[in-house]
Amino acid sequence: MPDAEKLLIAGIRRRTASKSPSIALGIGDDCAVLRIPHGHQTLVTTDFSLEGVHFRREWHPAEVVGHRCLTRGLSDIAGMGGNPVAAFLSLALPQNLPQSWVNQFLKGLLKLASRFHISLAGGDTAQSPVGILADIIVVGSVPKGKAIRRSGAHAGDRIYVTGALGGAAATLKLLFDGQKLRPADFPQHFYPMPRLEVGRFLREKGLASAMIDLSDGLSTDLGHICDESGVGAKIQASSIPRASTGKPARAVGLRFALNGGDDYELLFTARPGKRIPSKIAGVPITQIGEITRDKRMLLVDQSGRSSRLRPQGWEHFKAAKRSHA
Amino acid sequence: MPDAEKLLIAGIRRRTASKSPSIALGIGDDCAVLRIPHGHQTLVTTDFSLEGVHFRREWHPAEVVGHRCLTRGLSDIAGMGGNPVAAFLSLALPQNLPQSWVNQFLKGLLKLASRFHISLAGGDTAQSPVGILADIIVVGSVPKGKAIRRSGAHAGDRIYVTGALGGAAATLKLLFDGQKLRPADFPQHFYPMPRLEVGRFLREKGLASAMIDLSDGLSTDLGHICDESGVGAKIQASSIPRASTGKPARAVGLRFALNGGDDYELLFTARPGKRIPSKIAGVPITQIGEITRDKRMLLVDQSGRSSRLRPQGWEHFKAAKRSHA
Repeated sequence: MPDAEKLLIAGIRRRTASKSPSIALGIGDDCAVLRIPHGHQTLVTTDFSLEGVHFRREWHPAEVVGHRCLTRGLSDIAGMGGNPVAAFLSLALPQNLPQSWVNQFLKGLLKLASRFHISLAGGDTAQSPVGILADIIVVGSVPKGKAIRRSGAHAGDRIYVTGALGGAAATLKLLFDGQKLRPADFPQHFYPMPRLEVGRFLREKGLASAMIDLSDGLSTDLGHICDESGVGAKIQASSIPRASTGKPARAVGLRFALNGGDDYELLFTARPGKRIPSKIAGVPITQIGEITRDKRMLLVDQSGRSSRLRPQGWEHFKAAKRSHA
Repeated sequence: MPDAEKLLIAGIRRRTASKSPSIALGIGDDCAVLRIPHGHQTLVTTDFSLEGVHFRREWHPAEVVGHRCLTRGLSDIAGMGGNPVAAFLSLALPQNLPQSWVNQFLKGLLKLASRFHISLAGGDTAQSPVGILADIIVVGSVPKGKAIRRSGAHAGDRIYVTGALGGAAATLKLLFDGQKLRPADFPQHFYPMPRLEVGRFLREKGLASAMIDLSDGLSTDLGHICDESGVGAKIQASSIPRASTGKPARAVGLRFALNGGDDYELLFTARPGKRIPSKIAGVPITQIGEITRDKRMLLVDQSGRSSRLRPQGWEHFKAAKRSHA
């Protein structure tokens, strides 16, 4: 094992020495050993964060890369209504990377982990042939049979989203346009927050019939709900809550709210009879449309005209380049 | 999501459609949902397989890359005495990669998965900035408190290895030397088999005090056991079982058996009173030395002379280049 890797592992071990009751055995053996509560099922999700694909070193400070890396995984746990248990990180680093980059990356990741009371329990390190390559694995738990799936939506269900949409993508456009941004002024892009409390609340109260986290963009992720549930959807354009970004803050354009990815809000459906609070854990909840028997997705504009809504979700930087360069 | 990724996911879903009782929900939602048996703890391990670091396309057929990728994860489960439950794959592919490569890669991976009755239950796909990037995650289970750790060795314990060592590294040397090899003639390198049955047997019978899988090489992995257990070791050079490779088969040199990685055999320790079978699940078991109170590692040669044994395990291609080029 090269010295840089040893240092990395020692650094992670030192920083994650605090005991979590869920981790029977953490970093330093062939596997981590986790305790999943009795009567619960185990959730697993994996997500790449690759330099040049999901982030750029010149745009994203190391601490931001660490934060966003873990958000990707935690948001998937939120999308099932689960509780996160532990995170694992496979991290390949180029030989010339400064140690300070790694320290700041871990700082951002571990700060978010501690916010949700989980530890880094293991992973892998390697030398990267090119660029920084991270794969985050989050393991969670959910009471048996209670995970909120994509496949549970029925015709007539109302469609809701948490928070406001499009902020991350609109910020990315500014970065592509060459603007220098202060991360603190654009938190939706640089510090997205996984909606774990909202997901858990919806599961505990039995409110949601289907759920997904908004990582690929509303039009694409709603498409996943429709595909898996065998239904369609009708969305009111004027109801979609649009994020405000920058300083002074400005509302983003509709296309960002419809197709922009990386917001890490939740999209869920609920039977018509369910009373959905207007805020959950401090996060606004907005009804944006309803599920239809007809399997198409439609967008209704302010004058009442319908048009087909096609999945055009942000494909990270590739699509961003296509749309904006 | 680009079309290549959609195809990949559809292909995996099709190939893994068979139901496993451990998988409540597989590919196609925010997370997979697993059922870990009651009274068991959850094992998690992650391992990169990066082109140019862990494999080369000109040396390793795609099917071999898939097989070795999963072996890395399964071998870690074996090293704890666990049962594999499900695998997850994060896979980033360069844009110009032929679909046939991906198909063969999955074929190799899924054939090994089916040999051990597990499915691919999820993962992530992305476009790679350069080269093929795979991260395999294996989740397993073990009865509560029964995982065999690296930290359980005591002075006086006997040290054992499964199978024969050095075959994978000796083969890698031939590849570095420019030889064209038939994978079937060099199975230790191209088709290593995780020792899951052996690990499980040792755990069920309570025979092993400490265990690790031999992925980094005997000298390095024995060093991990010694470090974590706070002990030393004395190894008899003449007792180390050396692999035979090639056609006609020839025994590998001692340095490959001592320092060569990627054998995926098991190294374990057992109290002096334990009777260890000479074969477990058809795999030969060999005593190679014993654990000492003195924290150094020593190698005893045929004439009885001792010398310091230092961790010099194979650091994949980087170290290989240093030693052999």
